[in-house]
Amino acid sequence: MGNCCERAANFFGPQKNTYIRVSLPAVCFVWQIAMVVLFGVFIRYDEESDEKGWNEFKKSHNITSNIENDFYFRYPSFQDVHVMIFVGFGFLMTFLKRYSFGGVGFNFLIAAFGLQWALLMQGWFHALDPVTGKITIGIESLINADFCCAGSLIAYGALLGKVSPVQLMVVTLFGVTLFAVEEYIILDLFHCRDAGGAMVIHTFGGYYGLAISWVLYRPNLNLSKRLNGSVYHSDLFAMIGALFLWMFWPSFNSAITNHGAGQHRTVINTYLALASCVLTTFAISSMSQKKGKLDMVHIQNASLAAGVAMGTAAELMITPYGSIIVGFCCGIISTFGYLYVTPFLEKKLKLQDTCGIHNLHAVPGMLGGFVGAIVAATATEEIYGKEGLIETFDLTGKFENRTMSTQGGYQAAGTCVAIAFGLVGGVCVGFILRFPIWGDPADDFCFDDEAYWEYCFAQFMSHIVVYYQLLEALS
Amino acid sequence: MGNCCERAANFFGPQKNTYIRVSLPAVCFVWQIAMVVLFGVFIRYDEESDEKGWNEFKKSHNITSNIENDFYFRYPSFQDVHVMIFVGFGFLMTFLKRYSFGGVGFNFLIAAFGLQWALLMQGWFHALDPVTGKITIGIESLINADFCCAGSLIAYGALLGKVSPVQLMVVTLFGVTLFAVEEYIILDLFHCRDAGGAMVIHTFGGYYGLAISWVLYRPNLNLSKRLNGSVYHSDLFAMIGALFLWMFWPSFNSAITNHGAGQHRTVINTYLALASCVLTTFAISSMSQKKGKLDMVHIQNASLAAGVAMGTAAELMITPYGSIIVGFCCGIISTFGYLYVTPFLEKKLKLQDTCGIHNLHAVPGMLGGFVGAIVAATATEEIYGKEGLIETFDLTGKFENRTMSTQGGYQAAGTCVAIAFGLVGGVCVGFILRFPIWGDPADDFCFDDEAYWEYCFAQFMSHIVVYYQLLEALS
Amino acid sequence: MGNCCERAANFFGPQKNTYIRVSLPAVCFVWQIAMVVLFGVFIRYDEESDEKGWNEFKKSHNITSNIENDFYFRYPSFQDVHVMIFVGFGFLMTFLKRYSFGGVGFNFLIAAFGLQWALLMQGWFHALDPVTGKITIGIESLINADFCCAGSLIAYGALLGKVSPVQLMVVTLFGVTLFAVEEYIILDLFHCRDAGGAMVIHTFGGYYGLAISWVLYRPNLNLSKRLNGSVYHSDLFAMIGALFLWMFWPSFNSAITNHGAGQHRTVINTYLALASCVLTTFAISSMSQKKGKLDMVHIQNASLAAGVAMGTAAELMITPYGSIIVGFCCGIISTFGYLYVTPFLEKKLKLQDTCGIHNLHAVPGMLGGFVGAIVAATATEEIYGKEGLIETFDLTGKFENRTMSTQGGYQAAGTCVAIAFGLVGGVCVGFILRFPIWGDPADDFCFDDEAYWEYCFAQFMSHIVVYYQLLEALS
Repeated sequence: MGNCCERAANFFGPQKNTYIRVSLPAVCFVWQIAMVVLFGVFIRYDEESDEKGWNEFKKSHNITSNIENDFYFRYPSFQDVHVMIFVGFGFLMTFLKRYSFGGVGFNFLIAAFGLQWALLMQGWFHALDPVTGKITIGIESLINADFCCAGSLIAYGALLGKVSPVQLMVVTLFGVTLFAVEEYIILDLFHCRDAGGAMVIHTFGGYYGLAISWVLYRPNLNLSKRLNGSVYHSDLFAMIGALFLWMFWPSFNSAITNHGAGQHRTVINTYLALASCVLTTFAISSMSQKKGKLDMVHIQNASLAAGVAMGTAAELMITPYGSIIVGFCCGIISTFGYLYVTPFLEKKLKLQDTCGIHNLHAVPGMLGGFVGAIVAATATEEIYGKEGLIETFDLTGKFENRTMSTQGGYQAAGTCVAIAFGLVGGVCVGFILRFPIWGDPADDFCFDDEAYWEYCFAQFMSHIVVYYQLLEALS
Repeated sequence: MGNCCERAANFFGPQKNTYIRVSLPAVCFVWQIAMVVLFGVFIRYDEESDEKGWNEFKKSHNITSNIENDFYFRYPSFQDVHVMIFVGFGFLMTFLKRYSFGGVGFNFLIAAFGLQWALLMQGWFHALDPVTGKITIGIESLINADFCCAGSLIAYGALLGKVSPVQLMVVTLFGVTLFAVEEYIILDLFHCRDAGGAMVIHTFGGYYGLAISWVLYRPNLNLSKRLNGSVYHSDLFAMIGALFLWMFWPSFNSAITNHGAGQHRTVINTYLALASCVLTTFAISSMSQKKGKLDMVHIQNASLAAGVAMGTAAELMITPYGSIIVGFCCGIISTFGYLYVTPFLEKKLKLQDTCGIHNLHAVPGMLGGFVGAIVAATATEEIYGKEGLIETFDLTGKFENRTMSTQGGYQAAGTCVAIAFGLVGGVCVGFILRFPIWGDPADDFCFDDEAYWEYCFAQFMSHIVVYYQLLEALS
Repeated sequence: MGNCCERAANFFGPQKNTYIRVSLPAVCFVWQIAMVVLFGVFIRYDEESDEKGWNEFKKSHNITSNIENDFYFRYPSFQDVHVMIFVGFGFLMTFLKRYSFGGVGFNFLIAAFGLQWALLMQGWFHALDPVTGKITIGIESLINADFCCAGSLIAYGALLGKVSPVQLMVVTLFGVTLFAVEEYIILDLFHCRDAGGAMVIHTFGGYYGLAISWVLYRPNLNLSKRLNGSVYHSDLFAMIGALFLWMFWPSFNSAITNHGAGQHRTVINTYLALASCVLTTFAISSMSQKKGKLDMVHIQNASLAAGVAMGTAAELMITPYGSIIVGFCCGIISTFGYLYVTPFLEKKLKLQDTCGIHNLHAVPGMLGGFVGAIVAATATEEIYGKEGLIETFDLTGKFENRTMSTQGGYQAAGTCVAIAFGLVGGVCVGFILRFPIWGDPADDFCFDDEAYWEYCFAQFMSHIVVYYQLLEALS
């Protein structure tokens, strides 16, 4: 059987360069040991997860019930976000007929590394105690760490099937680092609101992945064309991912918004926008084919674009019909993107974007940033109440006197920062990934789990071989 | 390859009538634009999701903590219900070997449309402010909207594989409308309790679907017989749907029950009934086959019947062993239904019920309505406490003096109303769907994703062709 | 077609002994009726789920808000645990190419029975009211019942594909009984802390399954070797189970820990350990193969070992970096187990462990027990605060004066009790299962759904037959 496996594997030419027996374990071990050391030096429980700290916190804040612990406000949303990161993103990327292991497996690896590194990077920028020099973490840190991974997982969508797991670890290392910096600029310096990360997660992640993919352009990728597609059941696996993303997106956008009405409203807005997006996605998908048939790629992807585009505005008073309008437009824009823009980018800009993250993350994220800017600029005390306006935009301290139009301007500027970080960071990381040491597959060996997974595809391939031999014999 | 696709597609005869390139986009766009307008006119945030409103609400109700926002009582259950609607119902309907895209995809479409229309319809009947003329929505509205969709999704179960997506939109439009009316009669006028919707969701949805299917009877459906069945992996996909329904049914029944002991008890009752139901389902399934082998259809469906049948009674003091007895009976009744009643209905009543919703929703729902009536009629102050009885049955205002036996009578009457609405409404909608404009497939082209999905089954079919050619050649 | 099915089924020899048409229904019916009777005699709602009781409880405890009901502290975690039991364990066991129905289906059956029996057994030992003679149940009881099932489901992992469903019911009946006794000894008599069940669930369940499998050794199991493996899509189904287990393990470990900081900290610790474990699992998996390719078996299983190993210590102040170190070691140990220990056990100890529970549950569980002992022994008032130490270890009543080193000693002793109960109990149950009345499959008919599921594999098999015939003809 082993012999048969090997013969089958050689059928389409020799495997180049995909030897990762040294590099992958080395990267995993060294970086994980670094995590142990850095966590030992820096990371501690925050006062709501520390046994002693919480008892003191309750006394000092006159809290009588444990239900006031932030844990109970955030944990259900956290678990939904966690499912989106690992099952949502992971299974959405199983749609390729023979790269499903790589889709869900490498997603697992890079998210597991990324969230540790994110706790450190985000901690240094946002939660470093100047006195003790420690970072304290709680449930909100875990949600933010998952968010931070999402940026790199989005980038993976553009690279799916064309890079090695070692390269993906590098993408994640730099992706998380860049994320933490741009997030610091956008959320802290610019004092923008972006609870669902339309700017910091989706715009950044989208352009980061596209820039990397552009640098890593493969002129002969059509040699792997036969595998760059789905089969019936791989599309169903991808549908699992798509639906969990779609269903839990209200949790994604509301996970770190303000307690009470803030989380409540964010859920309503996201829920409505996503529902609306589904209908326009089906409409455009059906219109685009001569017999009106639907395309699974659109249903799996474009129907999610509204969640991205509501990332900033969902926590604001965008109104229910405002949300529906955003969803309406996103379904159209994103499906058009899959139909016309992705092929255009590939032909004209030499940009190969396997999952079409340009249409699902980059453009809707950018759109979401600007929608957020408009909704922020038009916010008034009449709508939010004096107290509500201050709470929603956190206009305290040195931002006390910021006007709403200024806020809107900063929101728009934040979107531009996210794009810039994505593009520039992506190009730099792309050049790093071009060193010939990472074990990436040859052009004729892309989109193939055979490269990195111990699995015998002989049975699968032999079926195809048999079929063609028979067709020939019968003709 | 395109040529090969076409040849393969023509193998079993020409495709009739399934051109939906105009009708589906038209329906999606027009109805979605109507939603935008109607939401703009009618829908606003309620006081717990409105920034200003919540701050005022807290002051006027002397609430100090945001955790008192209804959001934190309902959101975890809401997300479970959401998963049931989209992954539960969706994947349960992927069991057909070649209609999995249609099962999960059209479920997605009609639920996304249905929940928007449900927010409006239910709002007009239950939450229209007479002063402002606005409907205010919060987390409980979203749960109810999901519930309302469930009625139409159940109906889809009877129609699976035999209708076009445009027809399904029509089914949903009328289904949601009828639902809102019967719900208003049962819950408001009759003042019944039906938190999990045994009557309003399952009985109505079941008979609605059956009546439609009866009107749409296809005498030559056996021409599509070869596709009306499962393959190994499609049954596993369906098992994903079945398990998520089974696991989250306690959330379904408890999502809108009273805070505190009400939600708590509903979960316990539903959990126990479902567990009990699994054992009798396995028992009857094994007894029914000569070698004692189990049938996946029973396991996927009949084990859920207890959740349906507990829809009304779960929030009442039915006692743990009462719940187990209900589950015990449901497993038996539902499995017998799959074994004997569904074939009987098809042969004698000319009623084609693809998913067997008669056994999973219609009969258990009706049963649940009557169980609820009995448990309500036997409720006493001794069991509930004076305060508890008033709270549980909401006996305030003009219902202050209603006796428990009267309540029981109204519950029973409510079940009959649900049946009547389902049957009459379904027959009417069925006749509408018989107009030859909807793009439904011909009798020999049912249960086939080829009709509405851009997908090349040539590879799949060629395998079968090769196999038969070879069998012939060898014989 | 029936004829063809039968021919195909006889292809690899006659089916022996798998007639369960009498025994399975009998066991299901009789045991379920026993449940009805026992629940009727013993089980009642507790004061937080009883309508009258909760109103009285609120008054007597001066509680004004329903949010103080334990339901709101536990329900989100409960649902996550529920998903782990039914989808997590169920789908993890679908990895075999032709035993996926049995994996997920029998998991469903035994968990549904086990949780009812667990409510009774655990109730008698922990919650029997000496005055009324009743067991009162609430949300925590449901979580504990799910936990209790997990012990038997773990044991099923070692037996997967080699036993009949009737045998599995017997395994569960005794498994739950033994579990309740060892749990009583460890948690009540020894007064150990073991919120995530490293000892009581995983160590016990692991050794229980291994001991049964050892007694049921099948010398000719290699006759079924062709089916003891995965295919591409069955590995993806298993990945669904693995990911839901991985994502929800923080909920598993925190589901019954103390409110407030306790649950909060448990989640953080488990989350970090699991992330760390993924990286070392990938590293060792890659190192073990000559080309550095990854093995799905390791990714699906070894990456979960950290959750097991944190079962005891996660609720303690193990520190974030302590958690990461535990995860680091577990990934290495567990993957080595799959590579070297499982083959060794099979060859030398005649121990056939289908899912490798030795590496995923038995060893990590034992390790977790000892880690917990160390962390407990080193606990100080300085770290926990005086109040926190008493709360965390529940040092009240007769345990008021227990020192931390004594506590550590008891924790270690508890681990040994769990091992002893697993091994001795497993051997006894194994001998019971050797009676020739249970309908288990012959050695050449293992790992095959054909034995217990009404399903025609003719199509599947014919493809293989065709393939070999053609290969021969062409050579």
